[in-house]
Amino acid sequence: MEVIRLKTTKRIELVDITSKVEEVVSKSKIKEGVCFLFCPHTTAGLTINENYDSAVRQDITQTLTKLLPPDKDYSHTEGNADSHIKSSIFGSSLVIFIENSRLCFGAWQGVFFCEGDGPRVREVWIKIISDIKD
Amino acid sequence: MEVIRLKTTKRIELVDITSKVEEVVSKSKIKEGVCFLFCPHTTAGLTINENYDSAVRQDITQTLTKLLPPDKDYSHTEGNADSHIKSSIFGSSLVIFIENSRLCFGAWQGVFFCEGDGPRVREVWIKIISDIKD
Amino acid sequence: MEVIRLKTTKRIELVDITSKVEEVVSKSKIKEGVCFLFCPHTTAGLTINENYDSAVRQDITQTLTKLLPPDKDYSHTEGNADSHIKSSIFGSSLVIFIENSRLCFGAWQGVFFCEGDGPRVREVWIKIISDIKD
Repeated sequence: MEVIRLKTTKRIELVDITSKVEEVVSKSKIKEGVCFLFCPHTTAGLTINENYDSAVRQDITQTLTKLLPPDKDYSHTEGNADSHIKSSIFGSSLVIFIENSRLCFGAWQGVFFCEGDGPRVREVWIKIISDIKD
Repeated sequence: MEVIRLKTTKRIELVDITSKVEEVVSKSKIKEGVCFLFCPHTTAGLTINENYDSAVRQDITQTLTKLLPPDKDYSHTEGNADSHIKSSIFGSSLVIFIENSRLCFGAWQGVFFCEGDGPRVREVWIKIISDIKD
Repeated sequence: MEVIRLKTTKRIELVDITSKVEEVVSKSKIKEGVCFLFCPHTTAGLTINENYDSAVRQDITQTLTKLLPPDKDYSHTEGNADSHIKSSIFGSSLVIFIENSRLCFGAWQGVFFCEGDGPRVREVWIKIISDIKD
């Protein structure tokens, strides 16, 4: 298992970790396979979306915050109940294919760490399984 | 990696791609393993849900459209900010098991391509990893 | 494929199945690998979230029920359209890493079966792929 470390800077934000994941794949020397990402935090998640226009990220975080405001009447009293709910909506794992030693993305795609209760020091865990039996 | 191609016909719809995925699994000759699906588009996603009563699909798309209307005040100015948000809610990848050369589904399940900004020509990418080491 | 069976007791609840999944991993004797979970039901899902303070679970189910009330005007007439929508929001599969013969979780994480239309007898399907080629 490889570990990516990152520092988030806001309470809620989508941080582009595409190049960090690419680096892990490149170091692994695996040519064909599947890359799995796992978020070990319960107030954050992972998603794949457009990494060209940063307004997309902003719309995702702002719209989800309107649907799930932090200051509602929640049972969990740590002030981050909304972040736990967002975590389950984004999901904790991703599957990305590897071909020719590179992650396979569509034209506009990148990988994002979905911070829901920052700023914090966070981790993303990575495992790669090779297709080729040698 | 195998590629499924499809043409969607509406702006927002759930297209049943179960038989197309079954075909790829059948051609692969893999008896036991895991099938991974990946959506390379940022205004679409993938989901597994009931493929018996088509009203279920309709409820999913209509309810999400009410929660995330296309004509709200978004930062992304291409008119499809809602589709990007839906994409992150559905998710970009699926995991389905293979046993006896067939996809393993529950009684009512099928695989759907979740179009969020159609009609368009779309792709779904597929990779299969075999369980059996021979 | 291994099968976990469980009985849910409410219409909507998050049931902690972490120890049941741990048991399957332990019996498999696999030291390093990836554990995949699949929910074969279209009115339920799977998620990873905090399993320390049970108020988190309660906030997740109550907030989603407010956003997606069961008694709205749906096309699907079986009274569980909301459960189908929740199923697609949670998702039907999970990816969890295995190291040293144990599931790898963050400090507060556990695995939950997201019942959306209980009480019912339910299943979770599990497959484990080993990292080590021996």
